[in-house]
Order: sequence, then structure tokens, then C-alpha cells
Amino acid sequence: MQRVEIEKAQQKMIDYLDTAGIVLTEQEKENIEIADFGLGQLEEQGLELITYINNEHYCAKELVLFSNQTCPEHKHPPVLGSEGKTETFRCRWGKVWLYVEGEPTPSIKATVPQGSEAHYTVYHEIELKAGDQYTIPPNTLHWFQAAENGAIVSEFSTTSRDEYDIFTDPRIKRVPETNG
Amino acid sequence: MQRVEIEKAQQKMIDYLDTAGIVLTEQEKENIEIADFGLGQLEEQGLELITYINNEHYCAKELVLFSNQTCPEHKHPPVLGSEGKTETFRCRWGKVWLYVEGEPTPSIKATVPQGSEAHYTVYHEIELKAGDQYTIPPNTLHWFQAAENGAIVSEFSTTSRDEYDIFTDPRIKRVPETNG
Ligand SMILES: [Zn+2]
Ligand SMILES: [Zn+2]
Repeated sequence: MQRVEIEKAQQKMIDYLDTAGIVLTEQEKENIEIADFGLGQLEEQGLELITYINNEHYCAKELVLFSNQTCPEHKHPPVLGSEGKTETFRCRWGKVWLYVEGEPTPSIKATVPQGSEAHYTVYHEIELKAGDQYTIPPNTLHWFQAAENGAIVSEFSTTSRDEYDIFTDPRIKRVPETNG
Repeated sequence: MQRVEIEKAQQKMIDYLDTAGIVLTEQEKENIEIADFGLGQLEEQGLELITYINNEHYCAKELVLFSNQTCPEHKHPPVLGSEGKTETFRCRWGKVWLYVEGEPTPSIKATVPQGSEAHYTVYHEIELKAGDQYTIPPNTLHWFQAAENGAIVSEFSTTSRDEYDIFTDPRIKRVPETNG
């Protein structure tokens, strides 16, 4: 992504957080991570996030999804002798549809990103509105999409090691090779 | 504490969270924990909290401190073969003064609760306003007090095992014997 596109998305995340009354330090604002997963279509498939703490035991992040934005399907496999990342998603603002392994929901509310249908394979739907939360076990496929007004999600988890995440879409690079 | 006093404090915590735009489910509202530490002076020494998740790896809570309310000095010792609880305090709203082991701050901003001076022994001050955070290592004495308008603090940590906490004040019972 180009620097100007990253800065625009960072400011948009700050605007979302402002609306919900969530405060970042100036340093954190500069460190907002814009993940387009190497797909070059941030508005459709992407995620905006800030990591508050990530130590050898636990991790806490704030995630923002813009209107109808989707975080692509992935899982957190066992790594370095640990069982893989466990994630608790707590919706703080807006609405998000989370899909995990299990009985497919007959008529899902999200719209699978056009052209990427082959890379979305789990369809058990959990709807999270402000105050709702769900914990995803390690090594479990999941993806999530914000409703029309976007969403803010607090993530509480075991240690984050994003570089080991396994995405269903083989084109995806979680950790960008350049920051353009 | 009497039921009516607990319910009053629970509603007061909900009012604080409303002001900051933090949403709880109805079930969570009923589960708000009011800790007076067995001292019978909740407004001076006490804490209001809700636990979002507490599993074998990590824990996340929302803490509320009313105007000038103090959480008494304590530490989280090694227990069950683990090194003791590590806590990250992230101030979400208001202002809180945190005191930990280390060089005592010459003129602290908090007021030690009257009559309990002997049970407050660490005075290295860290001021946390909305967006500020601090991580307390295991087995380290700490206490904290809200400024005049109160405070809301997100706590990210390793597993909580409150019953093993060690308080400096020998009168304190962290886990109430009855909920009368
Ligand atoms: Zn994930
Ligand atoms: Zn503590």
C-alpha cells in the first residue's frame, strides 16, 4: 500500500474510535496497523488495528472494520510448542458477523467478497453487537465482516504471532513485504 | 455488604460505563462484582468490576473506581507453578494514580485512606489518563486511586486467581465469606 492510502485509513480508524469514545495516545495513532493482506482491496478485505500489549502470555488489541469490510478466513495453528492462539472477540461498537467451523448457518448475513468465494469455507454464523463476545479456540478457521456501519472489536488473546497465521486464500501475505 | 448497597454500587458502575460508552450485556450487569475487601468502607476502599473472560491463559476485566476510591495495596504471588499474575492497566476514562514498588515519588497526588496509612507502603507514582497504560510485573506490590471524577480501567492480564492475592492490610478478605 502507498503511504497516503495507509495514512487515510489510519485517520479513518481514529474517527471510528472517536465516535465510540476510545482514546489512543499520539504514539499509538502513529502505530495503527493497516492490513490489506496483500490483496490490494482494503475496503473489501482488510483490517485496521492497534496492539495495546503483546507479551509472552497475553495480547490485547483494538480492531476496526469499516463498513462491510471483511477480515479474510484464517486460523492460528500450534506454534513453538504452544497450542495456537485463542481469541476472544468483544464487540464494543457497531455490529460484526463472525463465521467459524461448525454447522453452516442456512442464510448468512454477510456477503462473501466477490471473486474470493473459493477462499471462504466456514459458515457457522455468530452475530456480535456492542457488549457481545465470543471466544475462538486455537487452530479453528474463522472470518468476520462488519455490518453497514462498521464495527469496533476488542480482541483479548494469547500471544499474537501473526506471521504464523494460515489464510485459506493462498494469495494472502499477512505480514507485508514492503510498506511502500 | 447488604444486597441494597451492592445493587446501588452496581448501578453506579453502569452509569460510569454509560458515560464512557462502554456496553455490558444484561447478564454482565447482574454479575458486576462489588469488592469492599471486607473493610466496610466501599466509597473509600473498594473496586467495581466485571470479568469479560478468565481462562487458563489470559483474563480481561473492566474496572471502575468511583470518585477518589482506592484499591488497596496488594500483590499477585507465584501460584500453582506459574510466576504470578502480570497486569496491564489501560485507563479508558477519567484519571487514576497507580503506585508500585520503586523510587518513592516525593509528593504524591493520591490521598492515603485515613486510618489505613500503615497498610500503604509503595509510593512510586504513575499517572494514567485515558489512553495511558502500564504493565505491573508479577509479585510486585501496587495500589491505585481514582482522581476526583473517578476512572474506568481495562485490565488485560494472565489468569486471575483473586483468592491468592496478598494484601498488605491483614484485615482484608478479597473473596467475601458471605454475600449477605
Ligand atoms: Zn484470528
Ligand atoms: Zn493487582
